[in-house]
Amino acid sequence: MSKKKGTRAERELFHLLWEHFGPCVRVAGSGSTPKPAPDLLAGNGQRTMAIECKSVKGDRKYFEYSEIMQLKLFSRQFGAEPWIAIRFDNRGWFFVHSDNVEQSQGQSFLISYDFALKSGLKFDELIGKYSQQRLPSEESL
Amino acid sequence: MSKKKGTRAERELFHLLWEHFGPCVRVAGSGSTPKPAPDLLAGNGQRTMAIECKSVKGDRKYFEYSEIMQLKLFSRQFGAEPWIAIRFDNRGWFFVHSDNVEQSQGQSFLISYDFALKSGLKFDELIGKYSQQRLPSEESL
Repeated sequence: MSKKKGTRAERELFHLLWEHFGPCVRVAGSGSTPKPAPDLLAGNGQRTMAIECKSVKGDRKYFEYSEIMQLKLFSRQFGAEPWIAIRFDNRGWFFVHSDNVEQSQGQSFLISYDFALKSGLKFDELIGKYSQQRLPSEESL
Repeated sequence: MSKKKGTRAERELFHLLWEHFGPCVRVAGSGSTPKPAPDLLAGNGQRTMAIECKSVKGDRKYFEYSEIMQLKLFSRQFGAEPWIAIRFDNRGWFFVHSDNVEQSQGQSFLISYDFALKSGLKFDELIGKYSQQRLPSEESL
């Protein structure tokens, strides 16, 4: 994934959240400071979400162990839900709670398109417009 | 205030918050996007703060009406406390809740050093290490 394309995806989600959920900010220096930081932070007065954004061309995306762990740690301390937003080309956005990401071989994590389809939420589900049944329970946050 | 100096002050507060309060992010494009955004967002699992940072050389700082209104609006919708962090040269940081900023002539707002000293919180008070008596009540957020 090119950096430019990642930024475009992030901006797209930024505007989706503003329009349908609540205020959202893009985090400065995300991925380039020694402090852990998600790509986006969004809140609507009831929920706060820390979101790591990815755009992928193929069918699968690997994540470094530290990337997922930092998202979890940041979110727990900040008081936010940790989400991975992944956009597969021509197939839209899927949202996977960081507790649900599957560990692949070794220390890295994997989100495949099949997994996202089965275990991820679509945008309307994420923001609670339709079913909330697959949202994680409070205990798992 | 030079832009560079403002950025330095913002970074200083960013690190103070990380060290003594909880995770903090610097907001990308704050002040340069059409969407309202504070300079910093910090959370500790119990409180979330949206912070507008200023560094001033003299004894007073004026704020545009829209700057304060956008901080209030963003914070209310996001679910954060709206704070103005102002650093007077050689006299350190003061934190003024946006509801407490005094309207000056016309449409702008003013924070003077005397006002900050009287009505602002010091950092330790902001984060609740000492007195919390001057923190705003839930109703005023």
